[in-house]
This record gives sequence, structure tokens and C-alpha cells, in this order.
Amino acid sequence: MKMIDGGVTAAKGYEAAGIAANLRKPGKLDIALVYSQVPAKVAGTFTTNVVKAAPVKRDIALVKGQECARAIVLNSGIANACTGAEGIAANEAMAEAAAEALGVPACEVLTASTGVIGMQLPVEKICAGVKLAAGEKACGPEAGLLAAKAIMTTDTIPKEAAVTFTAGGKTVTLGGMSKGSGMIHPNMATMLGVLTTDLNISKELLQEALSEDVKSSFNMISVDRDTSTNDSLVVFANGLAGNPEITEKDADYEAFVEALHAVTVALAKKMAGDGEGATKLLEVTAVHVASLEKARVLAKAVITSNLVKAAVFGNDANWGRILCAMGYSGESFDPEVVDITIESAAGRTMLVQNGMAADYSEDFATEIFKQEAVTVVVDLKEGEAQATAWGCDLTYDYVKINGDYRS
Amino acid sequence: MKMIDGGVTAAKGYEAAGIAANLRKPGKLDIALVYSQVPAKVAGTFTTNVVKAAPVKRDIALVKGQECARAIVLNSGIANACTGAEGIAANEAMAEAAAEALGVPACEVLTASTGVIGMQLPVEKICAGVKLAAGEKACGPEAGLLAAKAIMTTDTIPKEAAVTFTAGGKTVTLGGMSKGSGMIHPNMATMLGVLTTDLNISKELLQEALSEDVKSSFNMISVDRDTSTNDSLVVFANGLAGNPEITEKDADYEAFVEALHAVTVALAKKMAGDGEGATKLLEVTAVHVASLEKARVLAKAVITSNLVKAAVFGNDANWGRILCAMGYSGESFDPEVVDITIESAAGRTMLVQNGMAADYSEDFATEIFKQEAVTVVVDLKEGEAQATAWGCDLTYDYVKINGDYRS
Repeated sequence: MKMIDGGVTAAKGYEAAGIAANLRKPGKLDIALVYSQVPAKVAGTFTTNVVKAAPVKRDIALVKGQECARAIVLNSGIANACTGAEGIAANEAMAEAAAEALGVPACEVLTASTGVIGMQLPVEKICAGVKLAAGEKACGPEAGLLAAKAIMTTDTIPKEAAVTFTAGGKTVTLGGMSKGSGMIHPNMATMLGVLTTDLNISKELLQEALSEDVKSSFNMISVDRDTSTNDSLVVFANGLAGNPEITEKDADYEAFVEALHAVTVALAKKMAGDGEGATKLLEVTAVHVASLEKARVLAKAVITSNLVKAAVFGNDANWGRILCAMGYSGESFDPEVVDITIESAAGRTMLVQNGMAADYSEDFATEIFKQEAVTVVVDLKEGEAQATAWGCDLTYDYVKINGDYRS
Repeated sequence: MKMIDGGVTAAKGYEAAGIAANLRKPGKLDIALVYSQVPAKVAGTFTTNVVKAAPVKRDIALVKGQECARAIVLNSGIANACTGAEGIAANEAMAEAAAEALGVPACEVLTASTGVIGMQLPVEKICAGVKLAAGEKACGPEAGLLAAKAIMTTDTIPKEAAVTFTAGGKTVTLGGMSKGSGMIHPNMATMLGVLTTDLNISKELLQEALSEDVKSSFNMISVDRDTSTNDSLVVFANGLAGNPEITEKDADYEAFVEALHAVTVALAKKMAGDGEGATKLLEVTAVHVASLEKARVLAKAVITSNLVKAAVFGNDANWGRILCAMGYSGESFDPEVVDITIESAAGRTMLVQNGMAADYSEDFATEIFKQEAVTVVVDLKEGEAQATAWGCDLTYDYVKINGDYRS
């Protein structure tokens, strides 16, 4: 397996576009299109929020009810959430406009939106923009990057990742784009991701691989615990790599799972590190835990603690808050055997040994925190499971971005 | 029932003290003592954090194992959490020094601490301070206020509340003091509360009333979701009001429950509104909910949402975030029937009707938010239960206070 450049157009047979429809901000790229030249197996995972945006409701039904899809059209600026019947109709119109322009049935076109909750989509602009995108779609990295830019809201960087691997003796490519920081944005729905591959695989295994993967990738990031109304992750697999269709969990399936994880983790880390106002990526790994689920809960509790995040911002090796966060996670453990270590490009030191302060240098610990990526390892010494979660620091800019008067 | 001035010394037969032992900050009042002239029934509720400070572990055992206690000694500045065997011994020494100075058995003296996690108590200073406090204890409001000040850490105001009510034909008084903001403080354990009453009541009913009450008072406040290692709430009932002992849930018990709730809610609101960096108290009530537990979960989800809190700071009537927070609370509901109303001293307006934007003035909504106390009511139209939660806005000062380099 090898990481390569590119995103949604890296795999064979995919085209993309990113255009400015002037939905909200004049000149901003705000409609993206990802299109497969041939029907592709489709799978997806969507927000668990009870409040679901119109595009999410429609996508869930489509992905559940059919094996293949052809395209997804996404817009930024307006989430089309809490928009009632009018929003549902606007979403349908968006899909139909794309279907007509692409010459495919509407049911093979998924949609996604991210942006302000409660505002209606400007249907005319949407349809005109979708038509424009369909006309401009193309293969190649530039087109993929335009699409990645068109789905950005408060992201400061476009997020792409791609890998190549081997299955059935063929070279297979998997690429993707995403936006968001796992769980935040002012007024906006948070996480959108589109993955494309030329792998030949059954829909059932494609869905199973995706659903399983997110548990240790996108679901392990948090910026502020706010699960949006629009989270959507879809993957298309169009088979153009020419490998024999993967229909069981054999070595080729495992190669795909590994590749998928490499891409989703790469995207997830970019999202966590680009959290609103963030100055650094925080990675927390819980090791030697009794069970995988418990390790995930513990790692996420630390990542999502406002006090830990604020301490990281202040370059403060505040291990008390880390232990405290683990302690209220809902999981039980013996605090008196826990070790905590921190590490970054500046070095590594143990802060806690067996539940009490280790003999460390406060200055050195501060230096370790003053890096763009900091890792915390909490060792529970009770089992063999481990899990990693990603987040970022809590800064003044987060408050500024989210506290600003909206209108 | 009537609210009155005062705190832990309002009820008959209680003395208090607050002195400066120079534990960390020279001159700061940092040891408090609350003492009952006669043995008092004792009950308590303590943190559910798996990581428990030394004083919490000892208090839990004592409150469980005996009917009465005589005093509680509390210190601020050092939490005595994650301090191992040395911390346990220091806590014992603190209790024993108080017991000796007061002339009571050590098992009748509870302890509590709030402050930095991981640092050991300076035992000599603690014992000297406890002796001093025992010598200075007195009845009256000034003494009670000194105690309330001595437990403060990053609180900006001391928190006291008291009521009188009638039971068994006698006038009964219940007062209390607390510190903290429900769940935060840099490095420090968060919530301490001491309630004193001259009511004559069985220990079992005293404990039951307290345990039941916190579900709708202290457990319904949050500043940042960080449940500390030291949360402790104890209540003493010394019977000096002279009413017949309450041994069943009769009208006198109900009068006590009502009085207890008035005091705990008053203290809880003071804590929520004094959250670190807070500029306003946020009250969220979920009404017409199918069950009480569900109403509590929903109200708390809104209170604890960083995005809602940041919006409140920005005076932004961001109802999308409120709905979003309800949506990821874990509880299911029909978003399409929800109404959301906001209210403060400046007025009242409906933001959401049946899950979609109501016709409201953005300017007026902003004015409503620009007050020191703002109420949000979410109506689910599905049942008869309701619950209220209290919190505060998320501000730059929260980040500043919690991000500051510690040493």
C-alpha cells in the first residue's frame, strides 16, 4: 500500500467539478460534483443526530435501497436542515437537475449540504450551479481539488488523501475528500466525506468495511462534541480496476480495509487538526485496555474535555485534567496503575506513573506541548486493546469564530 | 417557606470558621470549618468520577457507615487527589487535628478539599490551620460567610442560601454554602457544598431527600462537562428545631423537600452563573416531554453544547445549534413539532415553531440575549414532564483562565 497525491479523481473513471454558484458568498466555490463514468457500488454512513437534514434523509434511503449510484452533488453555505417540506423539495430539485445534466436517473444521484441551519436553498441558483458543474466535470487532480475546495466552510485547508494497493493482482486506487472538523462549525453541519475507488467489490462488503472503519477513524475525532445534523460519508466503488469482485473477507478484502483506513485516518487527522481556532493536533491513545470499546471511550473522553483542550492551548502539561476526563468517561479503571506519557517532535516524557506525578521537568513538558502535533498515551495496564482519538486545542479563536454575531 | 439571608450558620446550633492557613496563596482564606454543637444526622452525595480524591473516599465510607457526624473541615487550594498513600494519610491527619481541637471522635469529622490535583497537602500548615479554625468558630452570619469564602477557588462570589419553613409546628431553618460551577476549575476539583439544618429527621430520609434532590439541582448544572474528582455535598441535621423526628414521607417531609430544593437550586444557579469567564446565566427548560429523565437529558444537552454556549456569548439567537444539541443528546423526538422560545428581562420571543424558523426579529432576539440571565424553553409537545438545567456562556475568559500556563 502506498500513499499518493490526489483525492476523489485519483481512482479510474471518476470525474469531479467545483464551481461558484454564489449561494451565499460571492465568488466562493460552493457546489461540488463527483461522478463515476460507470455505475458504482455505493455505501455510506450518516449522522446519528435525531435532527437530520433533507439531503441526509434522502441519501440514507437511497443507499439502503439500491446497490449502485452514479454521482453525488454537494453544496456549501446552506445545510438545508430544519427546512421542512420546502427543503425536501429543494433537495429533490438539486438531485434532479444533476441527473438531467448527467443523463442518469435521479435515484442514482446523491446529495449533501453543509452550512447554515434553517435557511432554504436558493433553488434556481442551485440548479444553475449544478448544471454548470456537470458541464465542467473532468478527470485529474485539479478537478478533484476544486471539488474539495467547494465543500469547505470554515475549514482553512482542503482535505484530500489517496492510496494505491493491490487486489486480485491489480493495482487499485482509493481516494477521498472531506470537510469539517468532526463535529463543529458555526451554524453549519460538520462532516462531509466522499471516497472513490476503482475496486471491484460487492456492495455488502463495501458497506461493512465503511461502517466498521468509521468506528476508528471519523468517529474518533472531536473538536467540541457537537454532532451535526448533516454528517455524511459516502464511498463509490466502480470496479474499473478490473480485479475479480471481492465477495468474501479474503486477503484482497483485508488489503482494501487497510487502504480505507489509511485514507480515512489521514482525512480525520486533517479535520481534527483544522478544528476551528485550533493551533495544534492532539492525539490521544489509550493502551493496554481491557476492551476496544473501553479504549475508545477513554481516548475520546480526553480528546473532548474542554479543560484538557484549554491546557493544551496553554502548553500546560496538566495531567490532572487528563485523569479527571478518563474518570468521568463512564468507564471504570484503577487510577492507581495508570501511566501517562506525552510526546511530540520536541521529545517525550512520562507525566504520571501509577496514578501519581512522575518526576518530570515542567519546562521540558511545556516544550513538548509547544508543537503542532502532540501525542498523549495513557496506559491502563489491564488488557491488550488500544484506541486512538484525535482532537485539537481550545483557543480564543474558537470562541471568536463561534461567538460572533451571525447576521 | 421563606428565603432568608445567611448560610451554614443560619440554623440553630451551628458554628463556622474561615481562616487563612497560607496553604498556597498568602492571605487567602483557605480552611473552613462547619460544626454542630450536638451530633447531627449526616447524608451526602459525592462525585461519580472513577478518580476520587482522598477526602471523598473517606467521606463516602463514613457517611455510609454511621448515622451522625459533628463537623466538616474543608480546604481550598489543593484537592488532595491523585496523591496516593501520602494523600490518604494527610487527609486523616486533617480530620484528626480537627477532632482533637473540637473534642469529638475523628470518625465524626468529615473532610473536603478543592484545588490543584496531584499536589500533596502541607500537613503541618493544615493541622495548624485546622486548630486555628476550631478556636475561632462561632455562630452568626459573619462566621458563616468566612467559611463560604474559605472554600472559594476561582469563584468570583461566595455562595450562600437559606430558608425557613414549618415542620411539626416548629420553625425550621436550612442553610448552605457552596463553591464551584458544577464542573470546572483549572486544575481544581469543582463542587463543594455544605448544608445545615436544625430539622429533626431520620438519617435515611435525610439521605433520600438529598440524593433525590441533586438530580434536579446540582446535577443539572454544567459549565464544561468536566465532572471533577472532588465533588462533595453534605447535609447535617441536628434536630435542634425541636420538631418530632420525621420518619415517614408525610407533609413535614414534603415541606423539607421543598425547602431543600429552594436552597440547592439557589446555590446551583449561583454556581452556573459564576462559571469561569461567564457573563450570563443560561437556563434551559424542556417542557411537555414524554419522561422526566428524557427532559433532563435534553435540557442538559443544550446547556453543555459548546456551540450553544458560544452563541449565547455572542448574543446570537442560534436556534439551529439548540436543535442540533437536542438531536445528539441520545434521546429521540420529533424535530418537526418542536417549539423554541427565549426570554429574559428584555422580553420574550418564539424562535422556532414546529421545527422551523418562526417569524421573529433578529434584532429583538439579540436584545433578549444581551441580559445577565437568559431562559430558553424547548417544547416537545409529547408528554407532561419537564426539567430545567443551568449553565453559562462560553467566553474568551474561559479559555484564558483555563489555558494559562500553570507554573
